[in-house]
Amino acid sequence: MISLLDLLRRIDAGELSPQDAIRASHEAIGRIDDEIRAFVHVDVTARAAPEGPLRGVAVGVKDIIDTADMPTEMGSEIYAGWRPKADAPVVTALKRAGATPIGKTATTAFAHLDPTPTRNPRNTGHTPGGSSSGSAAAVAAGMVPLALGTQTGGSIIRPASFCGTAAIKPSYRLLPSVGVKCFSWALDTVGLFAATVPDLAFGLAAIAGRPELKLDDETDAPRIGLVTQDFAGEPEPDSAAALGHTVREAERAGAKVQSMGLPAVVAEAWRVHPTLQDFEAKQALAWEYAAHREQIPLKLRQHLDEAQPIDAAAYDAARSTAHRARGALDEVFADLDVLLTFSAPGPAPETLAATGNARFNRLWTLLGVPCVNVPGYIGATGLPVGVQIVAPFGRDREALAAARFVELALGAG
Amino acid sequence: MISLLDLLRRIDAGELSPQDAIRASHEAIGRIDDEIRAFVHVDVTARAAPEGPLRGVAVGVKDIIDTADMPTEMGSEIYAGWRPKADAPVVTALKRAGATPIGKTATTAFAHLDPTPTRNPRNTGHTPGGSSSGSAAAVAAGMVPLALGTQTGGSIIRPASFCGTAAIKPSYRLLPSVGVKCFSWALDTVGLFAATVPDLAFGLAAIAGRPELKLDDETDAPRIGLVTQDFAGEPEPDSAAALGHTVREAERAGAKVQSMGLPAVVAEAWRVHPTLQDFEAKQALAWEYAAHREQIPLKLRQHLDEAQPIDAAAYDAARSTAHRARGALDEVFADLDVLLTFSAPGPAPETLAATGNARFNRLWTLLGVPCVNVPGYIGATGLPVGVQIVAPFGRDREALAAARFVELALGAG
Repeated sequence: MISLLDLLRRIDAGELSPQDAIRASHEAIGRIDDEIRAFVHVDVTARAAPEGPLRGVAVGVKDIIDTADMPTEMGSEIYAGWRPKADAPVVTALKRAGATPIGKTATTAFAHLDPTPTRNPRNTGHTPGGSSSGSAAAVAAGMVPLALGTQTGGSIIRPASFCGTAAIKPSYRLLPSVGVKCFSWALDTVGLFAATVPDLAFGLAAIAGRPELKLDDETDAPRIGLVTQDFAGEPEPDSAAALGHTVREAERAGAKVQSMGLPAVVAEAWRVHPTLQDFEAKQALAWEYAAHREQIPLKLRQHLDEAQPIDAAAYDAARSTAHRARGALDEVFADLDVLLTFSAPGPAPETLAATGNARFNRLWTLLGVPCVNVPGYIGATGLPVGVQIVAPFGRDREALAAARFVELALGAG
Repeated sequence: MISLLDLLRRIDAGELSPQDAIRASHEAIGRIDDEIRAFVHVDVTARAAPEGPLRGVAVGVKDIIDTADMPTEMGSEIYAGWRPKADAPVVTALKRAGATPIGKTATTAFAHLDPTPTRNPRNTGHTPGGSSSGSAAAVAAGMVPLALGTQTGGSIIRPASFCGTAAIKPSYRLLPSVGVKCFSWALDTVGLFAATVPDLAFGLAAIAGRPELKLDDETDAPRIGLVTQDFAGEPEPDSAAALGHTVREAERAGAKVQSMGLPAVVAEAWRVHPTLQDFEAKQALAWEYAAHREQIPLKLRQHLDEAQPIDAAAYDAARSTAHRARGALDEVFADLDVLLTFSAPGPAPETLAATGNARFNRLWTLLGVPCVNVPGYIGATGLPVGVQIVAPFGRDREALAAARFVELALGAG
């Protein structure tokens, strides 16, 4: 992988020009992407910006995010060749920070579950996860140092875990989701993939205009609550082993880890996530469903068929549950800095026909809290298995700092 | 004005075909709109739908709301001729309910303050208000029975007051704002204009799929809290008189009205609305500002210039204030059904160079609570002056029911 901070250090030291850095990404894409298929469009004219904290940083942009100078096809033939009028604000923010959007990355159709042709760079017979399939794979394969993804259930943290990259789903709306194809407006969250946690932190700070998110070299040992989300079912052995290993290494490095349950209303929030999501999704995709139902791929079409009967009363109740769960989670954090939990049920499944399951992610998306995937553990089959750090709403810096602590404890990054 | 419920009663009685109803709107637009300039595009091919609760109802759609089969120009030359790919979900919902989007209504550029050429149908030398200028004027002039608008500060309630129509800004995200050009994602709210409060209620119920919003013939006398929003400055004499008259008539009809102040944190929320709004606006319009700054009209351009220095810390503090104010407002409603306050500082100003002031509206937009403009009072200059009913979040039915009570007490509707 290309470390963003390493790259910027080399640029600062004069060892590499920003334009050479962009050229290296173009070359890597040319060399690798016929096999990985992370990109659906590459801007061969893309050049480095002359200045900005991210000058020389090539970025893969998930193809549900509007770009004025590249197509935006939503992973769907309905939008074949579609060219939005404007860049999404997060793309303008990237450019303002000096980064270079180098191409659009493969997304499942409308960021749901029908897979893309993208392969997992760690083992090309396995899914990279989804829905941000191309963004995770592009960073994991060393084609770009940074990529934009989005998460409504587990579409950032899960593919990061499967592909062995760092990734953050920030607090809800820390990055604007304007100009991003909507699936569920209460859930959709824009986030980042990078090689390491400090790379993420630097990128997020620059894009969001929040310099305090950058990490210092030293991070304090965090107080960690270990949660297994029993309501979400059992993990596979590799994910259980990844969590156990992480606890031991974090404790050895000085962290305090305590196992804990979660309040009943939080478990209830996990259960109602689909109600809230799907009542919004049937509205968000109402035009596509009304005008182009037959062109919607199978999993999403069936999902929308099943969503049609969800009524406003069920939605209002789900929203109320989520509201109470956010309050209850605040109390869980009273004596803790972060929570530690699974990033995914197990390593990337050996298939290109499915993208895995978001059951260990969707709660945190619903609660709007920042989540970081920490790579570093390798499971029994040789594939990476991440762990997930969760912090209170608005405490993205704490999430990143604790994730960095864990990353170092795992000997990664 | 065309009452939506009257129109549907005539259709149900066989006195009017749905297609004749649409034709009548086409004819009214042809007859009136050269002078009023409410529409920026009329779909001359628009036809009635064969079924649905709103069949035969012609709807004006504010031109920041995406339509796949009509241009969507955002009130800006930057978007001249722009044709979105998809209908916004609220437009699909209109069509699904049987309504006929008949044209796009004039909006100030990006729904800010630079005026449109639209004239107030009550007196064409006066502004109709904004930013939903064309939607308010189209309903007030009797061209259509229903129109869609949006509000970020006071862009629905103010023009409704100036033009003498009923209007609702529903609870935040009761109607989806997906596919609506964003100014501030935490504030932008889609709402409706119609001739009377029951017309609004019927339309909103049909579009939102919430049949419980329809009003019965009888409405109970509400418990009303009278708030003057002193933090927002003094009203003009006509608005003060409208409120006083409404209190007397509502009490005479059996309502209990008590004057009250608002908690300090609510006043503080009023003060921080611009910080929250403008930090989001500079991001939401970042592409336009970066790529087309010179084409942004003067008021908005200066506004965005001034917004650039607002930092994330100020935004986070504003958001936290708004969160606490929402909690404090819940307590205000403990023994009340609704609040009653000014809809606008006074009647429509005698100018086409400005659209008026949102100072009595912006608090309620920030708090996400439903607001209804009740027409019926006519001020000293012969222009309408509305009053505003505000209910707790999610209590849109209570807002409409109390507004209907007041409308009848005023001898209107």
